[in-house]
Amino acid sequence: MKKVKIATIGGGSSYTPELMEGFIKRYDELPIKEIWLVDVEEGKEKQEIVGAMAQRMWDASPYDVKIYTTLDREEALKNADFVTTQFRVGQLNARIKDERIPFSYGMLGQETNGAGGMFKAFRTVPVILSVVEDMKRLCPDAWLINFANPSGMVTEAVLRYGKWDKVIGLCNVPVMAKMGESKALGVPKEDLIYKFAGLNHFHWHKLADKNGQDITKKLIDTLYEEGSGLPKNIFDIPFYKEQLMQMNMIPCGYHRYYYREEEMLKHGLEEYENEGTRAQQVKQIEHELFELYKDPELDYKPKQLEERGGAYYSDAACETIASIYSNADTEIVVSTRNNGAVPDLPDDCAVEVTAYIGAQGARNVAFGPLPTAEKGWLQVMKAMELLTIEAAVTGDYGTALQAFTINPLIQSGDTAKRIMDELFIAHKNYLPQFAETIERLEKEKVTIKDPIANQLSKEG
Amino acid sequence: MKKVKIATIGGGSSYTPELMEGFIKRYDELPIKEIWLVDVEEGKEKQEIVGAMAQRMWDASPYDVKIYTTLDREEALKNADFVTTQFRVGQLNARIKDERIPFSYGMLGQETNGAGGMFKAFRTVPVILSVVEDMKRLCPDAWLINFANPSGMVTEAVLRYGKWDKVIGLCNVPVMAKMGESKALGVPKEDLIYKFAGLNHFHWHKLADKNGQDITKKLIDTLYEEGSGLPKNIFDIPFYKEQLMQMNMIPCGYHRYYYREEEMLKHGLEEYENEGTRAQQVKQIEHELFELYKDPELDYKPKQLEERGGAYYSDAACETIASIYSNADTEIVVSTRNNGAVPDLPDDCAVEVTAYIGAQGARNVAFGPLPTAEKGWLQVMKAMELLTIEAAVTGDYGTALQAFTINPLIQSGDTAKRIMDELFIAHKNYLPQFAETIERLEKEKVTIKDPIANQLSKEG
Amino acid sequence: MKKVKIATIGGGSSYTPELMEGFIKRYDELPIKEIWLVDVEEGKEKQEIVGAMAQRMWDASPYDVKIYTTLDREEALKNADFVTTQFRVGQLNARIKDERIPFSYGMLGQETNGAGGMFKAFRTVPVILSVVEDMKRLCPDAWLINFANPSGMVTEAVLRYGKWDKVIGLCNVPVMAKMGESKALGVPKEDLIYKFAGLNHFHWHKLADKNGQDITKKLIDTLYEEGSGLPKNIFDIPFYKEQLMQMNMIPCGYHRYYYREEEMLKHGLEEYENEGTRAQQVKQIEHELFELYKDPELDYKPKQLEERGGAYYSDAACETIASIYSNADTEIVVSTRNNGAVPDLPDDCAVEVTAYIGAQGARNVAFGPLPTAEKGWLQVMKAMELLTIEAAVTGDYGTALQAFTINPLIQSGDTAKRIMDELFIAHKNYLPQFAETIERLEKEKVTIKDPIANQLSKEG
Amino acid sequence: MKKVKIATIGGGSSYTPELMEGFIKRYDELPIKEIWLVDVEEGKEKQEIVGAMAQRMWDASPYDVKIYTTLDREEALKNADFVTTQFRVGQLNARIKDERIPFSYGMLGQETNGAGGMFKAFRTVPVILSVVEDMKRLCPDAWLINFANPSGMVTEAVLRYGKWDKVIGLCNVPVMAKMGESKALGVPKEDLIYKFAGLNHFHWHKLADKNGQDITKKLIDTLYEEGSGLPKNIFDIPFYKEQLMQMNMIPCGYHRYYYREEEMLKHGLEEYENEGTRAQQVKQIEHELFELYKDPELDYKPKQLEERGGAYYSDAACETIASIYSNADTEIVVSTRNNGAVPDLPDDCAVEVTAYIGAQGARNVAFGPLPTAEKGWLQVMKAMELLTIEAAVTGDYGTALQAFTINPLIQSGDTAKRIMDELFIAHKNYLPQFAETIERLEKEKVTIKDPIANQLSKEG
Repeated sequence: MKKVKIATIGGGSSYTPELMEGFIKRYDELPIKEIWLVDVEEGKEKQEIVGAMAQRMWDASPYDVKIYTTLDREEALKNADFVTTQFRVGQLNARIKDERIPFSYGMLGQETNGAGGMFKAFRTVPVILSVVEDMKRLCPDAWLINFANPSGMVTEAVLRYGKWDKVIGLCNVPVMAKMGESKALGVPKEDLIYKFAGLNHFHWHKLADKNGQDITKKLIDTLYEEGSGLPKNIFDIPFYKEQLMQMNMIPCGYHRYYYREEEMLKHGLEEYENEGTRAQQVKQIEHELFELYKDPELDYKPKQLEERGGAYYSDAACETIASIYSNADTEIVVSTRNNGAVPDLPDDCAVEVTAYIGAQGARNVAFGPLPTAEKGWLQVMKAMELLTIEAAVTGDYGTALQAFTINPLIQSGDTAKRIMDELFIAHKNYLPQFAETIERLEKEKVTIKDPIANQLSKEG
Repeated sequence: MKKVKIATIGGGSSYTPELMEGFIKRYDELPIKEIWLVDVEEGKEKQEIVGAMAQRMWDASPYDVKIYTTLDREEALKNADFVTTQFRVGQLNARIKDERIPFSYGMLGQETNGAGGMFKAFRTVPVILSVVEDMKRLCPDAWLINFANPSGMVTEAVLRYGKWDKVIGLCNVPVMAKMGESKALGVPKEDLIYKFAGLNHFHWHKLADKNGQDITKKLIDTLYEEGSGLPKNIFDIPFYKEQLMQMNMIPCGYHRYYYREEEMLKHGLEEYENEGTRAQQVKQIEHELFELYKDPELDYKPKQLEERGGAYYSDAACETIASIYSNADTEIVVSTRNNGAVPDLPDDCAVEVTAYIGAQGARNVAFGPLPTAEKGWLQVMKAMELLTIEAAVTGDYGTALQAFTINPLIQSGDTAKRIMDELFIAHKNYLPQFAETIERLEKEKVTIKDPIANQLSKEG
Repeated sequence: MKKVKIATIGGGSSYTPELMEGFIKRYDELPIKEIWLVDVEEGKEKQEIVGAMAQRMWDASPYDVKIYTTLDREEALKNADFVTTQFRVGQLNARIKDERIPFSYGMLGQETNGAGGMFKAFRTVPVILSVVEDMKRLCPDAWLINFANPSGMVTEAVLRYGKWDKVIGLCNVPVMAKMGESKALGVPKEDLIYKFAGLNHFHWHKLADKNGQDITKKLIDTLYEEGSGLPKNIFDIPFYKEQLMQMNMIPCGYHRYYYREEEMLKHGLEEYENEGTRAQQVKQIEHELFELYKDPELDYKPKQLEERGGAYYSDAACETIASIYSNADTEIVVSTRNNGAVPDLPDDCAVEVTAYIGAQGARNVAFGPLPTAEKGWLQVMKAMELLTIEAAVTGDYGTALQAFTINPLIQSGDTAKRIMDELFIAHKNYLPQFAETIERLEKEKVTIKDPIANQLSKEG
Repeated sequence: MKKVKIATIGGGSSYTPELMEGFIKRYDELPIKEIWLVDVEEGKEKQEIVGAMAQRMWDASPYDVKIYTTLDREEALKNADFVTTQFRVGQLNARIKDERIPFSYGMLGQETNGAGGMFKAFRTVPVILSVVEDMKRLCPDAWLINFANPSGMVTEAVLRYGKWDKVIGLCNVPVMAKMGESKALGVPKEDLIYKFAGLNHFHWHKLADKNGQDITKKLIDTLYEEGSGLPKNIFDIPFYKEQLMQMNMIPCGYHRYYYREEEMLKHGLEEYENEGTRAQQVKQIEHELFELYKDPELDYKPKQLEERGGAYYSDAACETIASIYSNADTEIVVSTRNNGAVPDLPDDCAVEVTAYIGAQGARNVAFGPLPTAEKGWLQVMKAMELLTIEAAVTGDYGTALQAFTINPLIQSGDTAKRIMDELFIAHKNYLPQFAETIERLEKEKVTIKDPIANQLSKEG
């Protein structure tokens, strides 16, 4: 059995210890030899801290695995078997700007599918495409396992513009939903049958008991008694029960942004005005995590990491990698090429669905057509995704404006356009494809209203 | 040549004189014998006024046409060749409520595709379906020419639930656009080639010169010099030029609600707080029109009718009827069964497209696939339409809530739900299918916040 | 754990011992309590023989299972958990007529998708639909596991006209292919990854090694050295290698009828003129099998059954039933509702694909779009299937003629029409829906040219 | 009004006088200045004869139009406004080989969609694509009006591989059908409403009277009394009436090859064995026509041209050109990009449909979904077309074999493969893309069985 080389782009992420834990747990199915953490200059310090911590974790295990840290992506990718991507272009400061600039005008930034997520895509898509180009040269048989957000758009970009099929996008939302619902119903996870369909951070699921009886409505009833297994990073605002009963599906937690936009906005604005946006809170948590990681005695994943919000992301990635390696046909919810599984969307676009993961990657479970409302939502969100990615690739301002306008979380008009313009200015260093636009906006003296975002932008 | 019988449901409409003018103008191609105006009890007085006026118009013409007014729909439909529908369930007061209740919470009512338009559909769909049932018995060979709003949803309901194919929905927006653009370009209308595709009040078009050269971008340039041929009832807020250039199409005027939502809302709120909503303004105009119509000397369409906002609606209807009757293959933009003309939408749904109108109705011009953004918009709007019609037919509250939630003009959450609930209460008398919901809301003591809407609701 | 009741329609089939063997082998996962064999009057004697044999097999096992034989279908279906259908309307004699009448005019009868298979569908569809109606009353929670041929059309009819979702159609062809290819490649079946897509007796597959590398072309190379794992009942005529290389897929054995029509016809005609058609050979084998079954000492499946041609059919059925019962997610190739798995065909039609079978039935693996040629074949074959089923339900002669004309194995024209007419006469007793047509043909004195088929028809 | 330059590729065709007649008749709408006839070396003599004749026709008209004949395609194309293509690669001898080689093995050659038509496509597609490349350089605003057969596949190739949108394919079959049916019904053509959909030489139509009443069934009844308006070059074998009644459409004459394959084959074989195939007959007619054309007194289209079989082809082309030039919106049946008009086929493929022809080319009338049988036929025929064109472009033998195998007029197997191989040998000089295959076949000593075809092949 060939020993495995893993390359992790964005190696300095605070999630790396969870990734290590996941690999250690699965060493028997996935015999790793070496793990290469690679990051950019500005993440070097964090990567050193987390790299040392990672090595300690392996040293405390029975397995002989070597951790390498490097700033040289080519060295890391060379002959890798699996490449995981968890990088964040512009670090957490970029996300702070993504969130604060819209909030400063009373609008949601929403770091996955909202204005913030779109700019995250603008920054991330060119980088992931350059990673793919490197992989074509350096490790053409490797799988790309992405959990950089917006994970669905990144997967779509890799498939559509990178022309790279061996990609799987991951997300912890379905994992969290299954855990929460199992607990809510008092039924072991293994005794529930799930079928997910949709897009990343925008999917629905149905479930059945072990006899195959659909119990989606029973779960809805239960959720209105007990709480909903919602990921920690979304404020707990319940869906309208009549709406869930009509769709006879369970939305993902992020659907609150679409089904309860008013309240989600209100909550976000309160945070913005008081304790700071989610990104600011995360920055504080991360700071504390890295303080912990520095402890030369710490050789296990600290409990505090779970508060970080993305728990189980890395675990899902490890599970996926192990399933590919050992051809295990494990059932996992992933972002992957549609191939008809969601017939309301084109065959060749990325979707997030229940799939069986084996040596050939994802074998998507065909979900069949969705009901009218969910079909409409999927189609408009996929249009938004495709326009965002197209703008990320072409740097065209009109396309970016079209993407903003069709985004259901953005109220079109001058304020939205102003927010977009400020975001271009704020992320100047990470958006070379939009250089012409940014130059124009600078000439027009567009400035950033939010003082914190403005300060961060000045710092680069 | 068989002489023609026309039945006009909603005969008391202020538009009737325009309809008469249109018929008189086209008598040679469309030899009418009798026109039956039919209305409900509460519209009786207006119908008498407008019926007398209509008869005077014909008497002043060289043609011998008899106008009948009746409250007996069966009598009017019996052996009719064409049935035109221009009724307004609940009269203008219903529209005032449609608009004021959302505005009272700072949200757009929008009487075609917004919250107001959805409740208009809830009121109108059951009535049009009962008209269709009558037609099946009384005039099974007749054509139904609809210009009751929301015209697209009404056409969809007739096709889908009425199972009636001989229906054409009309709208004046394309007519106005062509006139305005011809003027803006300084090119006679006959020298421009148009292709429209989309949904009612939600379509785009391309145009070419008489040599077949696409001049859409040239028109966009021109519109940014000269004004845009926008229908009078929409406040003049320009589209973003970059956005139009990206789509390389001309949106219809109503697209301002989607592309400049912020400004359209602001303008609407100003009207709401000052001169009153558009419906209130129309009510005043209508009052003045009927005062004019009472004049026993008036035997022609008064100029003031053009201010009413729906100019050319009736003329488009007359043109359509004459083209069907004489198999003229006239090019008109109509709402009709898709049949593939807009391949991004199902074949069997209603669309609004350029068509050649003849004895078999509409021969739609196949437009081909739309660009990404417009495709996404169409798909989400069609989902909204289908859910609205389904709720109108089933009376299901959850379905209505899904329709509200997916509507791009409505911010989801408690305020939207509250608006919906107040609208149910406000239109109680016209929504028997929602009786159970309304009873529940009354028990929950839901009251109408806007005083004018509240007063009108109490009056019935 | 609830004990299971199985009802087997067509209980007198010679396959029943294989079914018993399959159940005995899987008793631990599928704890059966009773098996009801039900057949029609003319199959009573065979059913008694095979029923006694089945009971002996269970008695020789460690398990306490009771076999019931009955002619009362309602009694058998009452509270059944699984219903298997393996009946043959008109017994083997009907198949002899299906094959001999076309051959007597130099044309292929082909008992699955050819003229013979179409008449088999005409006979079988009304019966399966009546079974479904009974199930709705008597065992509404049961699964229908069909292996009566034409298995794909039967599944389609159950879904489309029976409106019954809990149906799975089975076939042994994929099982045979996997076994043969594993042997040809010298690689254990467990180390090969398969993906099938298409229709029953008309599918293709791709395969990969355990590392996920596609080895379809390698297999093609190997097959041209070693023989192709073709089911025993098809004469061994090789595919053209260039054609397989172009499609980069492996066709199923029945594709020889389409890719090597000339040779398959020639071979069939030789059999027809010498040893008799396949049905006649099968009749002889069946006779011998039943002689064996009569032996009161025989309590295991005799080896001779494998020559019967349908080996592993029943085993696949047992595997499917056990997987549903124990929610095992076993990978099996089945006929099931498409749901997008084969995006070149409508979502709601029956397809044959790789699926994971569990308590909710089949979770189809989304195959994605097929190449041009295979897409075209699938679409025309599905049209043939739908027309055949429609004719089977409506009894319309024109629809039957359309189905015959579009069938790629039938050369249109007077001979084909004559064959169709003779088949109507030949199967008179089993085609009540075509009574009017048959009456007309009898008036026109249509007689059956083939003397054996003619004699069998006179016998009923 | 700009004067028009026409370039006609294949100028030496016997149809050229009809083209001239069509232009002369329409001079008022289409003010031509010059017509350039261009042909290849081997067609030079014919082109000189027909060029002189064409000039005489114009000289006898009131219009001052100059005919140029040349072998220099670039000179002819330079600044042309319209390019018509009526060339025949390999002249009539090639068609003789296309027909005789299949017949020599008892199979249909069928020069449009059968084996013959496929080899015609193999020869024609590369040439038309080189014409398109020239047009991109020399006359980028010109329209390509094709009536070289197989007209549908040529149009498809121009759209798909040439990436050239300004193309319209023409055919006389719909013209002939309309004329014949008008006569059969005794109703003027202007009082009938037609809607065609399908592929070239493979379409169906519906018709209605001037009141819009569908009279397709009435026409079917009439056709069974009086004869069917079938083009002269297809032997008169009636369709089965039950089949037409089921489809409720009128097939085109070429559908006899699919609906009465047996009889069409029998008739073709009789011709083959006696008077010679259609191509041989046409060659004789052409010879006589050119003898006539040599007459320096002849200055009008001779009556004998109508016997040629393709009457009205050129007239349809002139009508199309005039309609584009004058933006006339004339209703013509053409081959054009689908754009959804036939929703059962991809939006981007070529279809043959009713369209309104104006300055932007074809505005296809959306036909809507076809019934099951016709949908299946269309899909399999389009697959055959696409594979044929792909093989024509790539020169891949396996793709050609796939195209042959899926063609409904070809019985697959060794004989079909042999026919294909002989055709490769026969057309060696015109199939450079298949050079490798032909070399292999020559090494394998494949010879041509039919003596006439063999002789012609030796001559080149």
